[in-house]
Amino acid sequence: MQAHLIALDWGTTSLRAYKLGRHGQVLDQRSLACGIMQLPSTPRDIAGHFCRNGFELALDDACGDWLDAEPHLPLIACGMVGSAQGWREAAYCPTPARVADLGASLQTVQTLRGTPLHIVPGVIQHSRLPNVMRGEETQVLGLLQGLPAHTRQDSLLIGLPGSHSKWVSVVDGCIRQFDTFMTGEVYAALCAHTILGRTHQPCDVFDEAAFVRGVEVALSADADIGVLSTLFSARTLGLTGQLSGAQQPDYLSGLMIGHELRALAEVSRARRAGGELPEVVLVGSAALCQRYRLALGLCGFAQVSLAEQATERGLWSLAVAAGLLAPQPEEV
Amino acid sequence: MQAHLIALDWGTTSLRAYKLGRHGQVLDQRSLACGIMQLPSTPRDIAGHFCRNGFELALDDACGDWLDAEPHLPLIACGMVGSAQGWREAAYCPTPARVADLGASLQTVQTLRGTPLHIVPGVIQHSRLPNVMRGEETQVLGLLQGLPAHTRQDSLLIGLPGSHSKWVSVVDGCIRQFDTFMTGEVYAALCAHTILGRTHQPCDVFDEAAFVRGVEVALSADADIGVLSTLFSARTLGLTGQLSGAQQPDYLSGLMIGHELRALAEVSRARRAGGELPEVVLVGSAALCQRYRLALGLCGFAQVSLAEQATERGLWSLAVAAGLLAPQPEEV
Repeated sequence: MQAHLIALDWGTTSLRAYKLGRHGQVLDQRSLACGIMQLPSTPRDIAGHFCRNGFELALDDACGDWLDAEPHLPLIACGMVGSAQGWREAAYCPTPARVADLGASLQTVQTLRGTPLHIVPGVIQHSRLPNVMRGEETQVLGLLQGLPAHTRQDSLLIGLPGSHSKWVSVVDGCIRQFDTFMTGEVYAALCAHTILGRTHQPCDVFDEAAFVRGVEVALSADADIGVLSTLFSARTLGLTGQLSGAQQPDYLSGLMIGHELRALAEVSRARRAGGELPEVVLVGSAALCQRYRLALGLCGFAQVSLAEQATERGLWSLAVAAGLLAPQPEEV
Repeated sequence: MQAHLIALDWGTTSLRAYKLGRHGQVLDQRSLACGIMQLPSTPRDIAGHFCRNGFELALDDACGDWLDAEPHLPLIACGMVGSAQGWREAAYCPTPARVADLGASLQTVQTLRGTPLHIVPGVIQHSRLPNVMRGEETQVLGLLQGLPAHTRQDSLLIGLPGSHSKWVSVVDGCIRQFDTFMTGEVYAALCAHTILGRTHQPCDVFDEAAFVRGVEVALSADADIGVLSTLFSARTLGLTGQLSGAQQPDYLSGLMIGHELRALAEVSRARRAGGELPEVVLVGSAALCQRYRLALGLCGFAQVSLAEQATERGLWSLAVAAGLLAPQPEEV
């Protein structure tokens, strides 16, 4: 089937490439460890030019063969590739940000092959403690487009777990407000670089019981003292023989996600004047969404569902809105 | 002046050695980077024995010359040297733990020179989330001995800032209850191994204004969402030009210490049935105590003072209680 768009989800550590068909359906996809902080560095020829630029090299690794076969395919990307450390900075759009209109604010960088790469801007919230996102705005758009028609957007809380999880409130197609938690990145740093990791026994299987135990501790009165204190229990429960080395990683994960969601539930209730917790839709890796879904249930979030293909849908939609999919000329 | 005791404060990263006189006064002292996780590894002769044992090598580095001059000086140590990863494990004493009686529970290891090293046990609190300390129990004892006679111990909260800060309540000379916060170690991991550190510009001078700003954020309603979320403000205030790279380290320090003390104040009030905040005495490095003192004031702790020489006093007192200072024989 003929391709119409190459869409890139280009973050800090990874680069995902999608070849999309006439209606945005995924014809092919790839995932590379070529995020903007770990670009390829070995120079080589690309399209007849000797190239040292890591962004060009990564782009070529991701979809050079697709472009060789169909040189006129338009290119669009979201994520940290548009940050100050990325290929070309695409300035943040302030909240309230109508996600469907972000296609009007694409930043463009000319690639070696002559095809421009269109980069989606992030979103900034100028609150007292500012918040920013890059990439998630595109997922939010894709998610909104995939919702059943009867869904009331303004009663939704959109959760995007990751190194930095985002929790987004949308009204009338606009990102109105969002929060960031660094839970994932802090967890990784604690496991790799503090005393907590020293007694961990890595285990490939998710230990649901240990995870749930961590969440329940975070929701208990023992955790009123805050996560900087309860973290230590991952060590002391080990020292006292109550938590094995194999259980510690998932206990710690549950404890930290539990603290995140306990706080999220508190501020959500406060913002809704003590009302019920909102319906949640999650977008992210399946394994991480499984953890968050489980923990959200324990925290009292009664309605939780998962959205799929949000990034591809969002990028497709922005490319359509930006007019990138106009009929291709036969020759350039 | 004649020495009567060699006292060691032997932790994870450092080893401090004190030569103490007739009344426990400090005649000489040293600090070495020979904590139990970074022991010397080059074998050499010690007292006529070829030695590969890192603990022996570190001990010899710290006070071999003192022992050469006065071979019969008794040796006492507190801290992680008594942990399972230490030289000889000194089992934890459970709370309520009468600190003056810990001298009856010293663990002993025979050194190459023939002099036994006496190791102070730590203290464990078997709460639902257990807590442990090693070394701080000795500082608490030293602090109690240095208090003015009229002080009401049971209205004191003893603070021991460090990689893991401890907050200790004492009644009738017993450690009754304590909390641990991993603030210091988490801060170090965040600075060295997360995106927050990437924009830091190290600065040798304490930026009090940036620190206070961090504390005030932690005490504000914006921080109800918890530290896993407010951490991100160290980055976004930077991105928006509101916090320079040089200000970020002390802002982050204030933010984290602020979250610690906000939680401590809340649980302290709850434990005292909503009463006033307790008087605080701090023991620890001067630089860190300065930060905590400043932040405690902002958090509403009205009475804060510093205790000095708590470790040396505590070790001296335990050695006296254990009878280690009996008149030395002329020859062994």
